Amino acid sequence: MKIYNSSTAPNPRRVRIFLAEKGITVPYEEVDIVKAVNRTPEFRKKNPLGLLPVLELDDGTCISESVAICRYFEELYPEPPLMGRGAKERAIIEMWNRRMELYLFIPVADAFRHQHEFFKGRIVQVPEYAQLQHQNAQKAFSWLDEILADRPYIAGDQFSIADITALCAVDFARVSKIRIQPEQKNLARWYEAVSSRPSAKA
Amino acid sequence: MKIYNSSTAPNPRRVRIFLAEKGITVPYEEVDIVKAVNRTPEFRKKNPLGLLPVLELDDGTCISESVAICRYFEELYPEPPLMGRGAKERAIIEMWNRRMELYLFIPVADAFRHQHEFFKGRIVQVPEYAQLQHQNAQKAFSWLDEILADRPYIAGDQFSIADITALCAVDFARVSKIRIQPEQKNLARWYEAVSSRPSAKA
Repeated sequence: MKIYNSSTAPNPRRVRIFLAEKGITVPYEEVDIVKAVNRTPEFRKKNPLGLLPVLELDDGTCISESVAICRYFEELYPEPPLMGRGAKERAIIEMWNRRMELYLFIPVADAFRHQHEFFKGRIVQVPEYAQLQHQNAQKAFSWLDEILADRPYIAGDQFSIADITALCAVDFARVSKIRIQPEQKNLARWYEAVSSRPSAKA
Repeated sequence: MKIYNSSTAPNPRRVRIFLAEKGITVPYEEVDIVKAVNRTPEFRKKNPLGLLPVLELDDGTCISESVAICRYFEELYPEPPLMGRGAKERAIIEMWNRRMELYLFIPVADAFRHQHEFFKGRIVQVPEYAQLQHQNAQKAFSWLDEILADRPYIAGDQFSIADITALCAVDFARVSKIRIQPEQKNLARWYEAVSSRPSAKA
């Protein structure tokens, strides 16, 4: 078993943090995204979309999509739970994780992808969309600050995969100059708490 | 328990099909999206994002995000499984469901949202992005046709939530004039099979 990884991209970091929180060690194989090794026909046998991370099992099965990889390990190693216990808690954490993906992580990623030099020639860029998503990402920061007014973590009292998704998004937002604002004190408190967990360095 | 529903929007349909496949009956309360009832402060107490569907539990807990609602019922009523059995199968189905969301459903939705009259004044539209996502949706149809060359359903031999997501996306694509092409015979065969299940009418 191994994980095809990029140490600089935000999605592989989600999986690394998840595994660090669980205390699971899986070998990582670095894939050079600057040289577009992930876009080669050989790599696309592992993930036709040419994206990282990819978990390769010992039987050759390749699983991509960060949360699908996390789900695999959550099923095998339920403790500590990062996706909830029981139907209601699992649904609430899934809701919050998806909100963090759809309304924070994706806008942050689009703000970067649709205007940055790195993606020129790699994707069709729409700079006007980058601007819109830049604004949406800033709105998501404000919303997150409100959410965190009455609880320590995004989905409630416990650290979960939703916090991992949000942390990776907030850190990735810096490349687009989207930062926590001085008045966003709840968001700042949460950021300090989740960033200082040992897993954040994974 | 009830579900706030829109009988014309694609996301609530995902949940209705999921429940029909499980044989679960939950009362639906129709929310008038044309009159933007979902955007009112009162509805936003149930989902601050103003989106449908929303599952309201008897204790008042509101769960939004279609897949989070599906997860809730999958946990309570595992048979027939629509999200897989065991770690590996669950991860593979999650991977395929996410691929259908990110590379099919979202492009289809964006192709509509960013150019259609209905969303004028409701969201900031970027028509150039609508065009790009229109093309991406067409590419996803082609990819899906390839995927379905060697298997009956999107994630393998069994009907799963990935098929539900894809069916709702393919049907929703018609409003943007994106249709299964005559040469996409695998996709057409799959579409015929999933559309003729009784759940498709839910």
